[in-house]
Amino acid sequence: MKRKYSNIKVIGFDADDTLWVNETYFREAELEVAKLMAPYETANTIDQELFRMEIKNLPLYGYGIKGFVLSMIEMALEISNYSISNESISKILDIGKDMLNKPVELLEGVEDSLKELSQTHRLILITKGDLLDQERKLEKSGLLKYFHHIEVLSDKQESNYSRLLKHLEVKPSEFLMVGNSLKSDILPLVNLKAEAVHVPFHTTWLHEQVDAEQSNGKAYATLKSLKELKKLLE
Amino acid sequence: MKRKYSNIKVIGFDADDTLWVNETYFREAELEVAKLMAPYETANTIDQELFRMEIKNLPLYGYGIKGFVLSMIEMALEISNYSISNESISKILDIGKDMLNKPVELLEGVEDSLKELSQTHRLILITKGDLLDQERKLEKSGLLKYFHHIEVLSDKQESNYSRLLKHLEVKPSEFLMVGNSLKSDILPLVNLKAEAVHVPFHTTWLHEQVDAEQSNGKAYATLKSLKELKKLLE
Repeated sequence: MKRKYSNIKVIGFDADDTLWVNETYFREAELEVAKLMAPYETANTIDQELFRMEIKNLPLYGYGIKGFVLSMIEMALEISNYSISNESISKILDIGKDMLNKPVELLEGVEDSLKELSQTHRLILITKGDLLDQERKLEKSGLLKYFHHIEVLSDKQESNYSRLLKHLEVKPSEFLMVGNSLKSDILPLVNLKAEAVHVPFHTTWLHEQVDAEQSNGKAYATLKSLKELKKLLE
Repeated sequence: MKRKYSNIKVIGFDADDTLWVNETYFREAELEVAKLMAPYETANTIDQELFRMEIKNLPLYGYGIKGFVLSMIEMALEISNYSISNESISKILDIGKDMLNKPVELLEGVEDSLKELSQTHRLILITKGDLLDQERKLEKSGLLKYFHHIEVLSDKQESNYSRLLKHLEVKPSEFLMVGNSLKSDILPLVNLKAEAVHVPFHTTWLHEQVDAEQSNGKAYATLKSLKELKKLLE
């Protein structure tokens, strides 16, 4: 019997929350800004308003920390009815700088998996967000040497992947994508008839969540940790 | 006699202030923020402090409008000694959004040059700054169809170009770079022994300016407008 993944030549890896911790830092930043804004609103309302602001600004700012900071400031001005202190705005700027300066914390089994798989497959890093920030994290991670190609996309929709596969001269049937986001890393690839492996992270940004209906009946594998990927491909 | 540029197979184009207006919008934003800050400092000091803030934050924020807006806010907090109004901070956010929403204004001769040259050479767009913002401008410009490949770099140093040429499988002797910035578009290529054509824009950000000494004795051509590029290559 032919093994399911024997055609796969190229493996794409998402970065944030697949190779290293990311969403946790956004959650921490949200808690900090909710504390700053506590005189004006409940933590729950602040969370909701910040999310609303991020989604409103997403077409203009895109993904990444800098847009998130700009949205936090705009939310703080609005929620406080334009009475927030300059010191609080300064603290929001600091929250953003701290996020940009965070060390890179690799997830379980990442280094070993990449090391092994890089001997049998061409590995590609496919991430979205801020170019400089992603390059910096990759540099800090020490993982650069395992990747053949790095691609930072402004968004991860089917068309972005389709263009990338064409550019890499890889057929969908030869490509496997690994990531934590059903919406960004898995479903677009399943739709392109490529393979996909979902490795969930313990927290997912609301914007990345999908209805059960959207993923219902779609063919992809799910793993608890990247540690298990090598075995799946054998 | 062999023509000087007969080896050239691939032409790289910078985007901002080479294909379309960019720096002018930053100058306009600086004038607007200086007006907002007029109660606190002279326009000259505000300009200097904003530049200082941008350079301080450049390693963290990188190039592009979002980092510029964050630096404007930080400068406004400091210069006002933490007494700037919420309304003024809101106006700074609006200045940034206006910049991101600007229409794309092509420079003289750009469309015709690219159209002609795309028939004889492989054209590559090589820009730095914010990924989403550059993709949006390219989309609005209508120029996408002339380019074989788009590369958004986090910085334009010799090493970035060297990696890119390797990736594109182009020898330096077959590559010509066209751009408005001596520092970012011309000197790194001259150092790599590729060809370079300087097309100055009427205004250059201080950070992109180079001493006469740095460009002294370097071999590159200078044109007044992209209109003349085709003739130079004939």
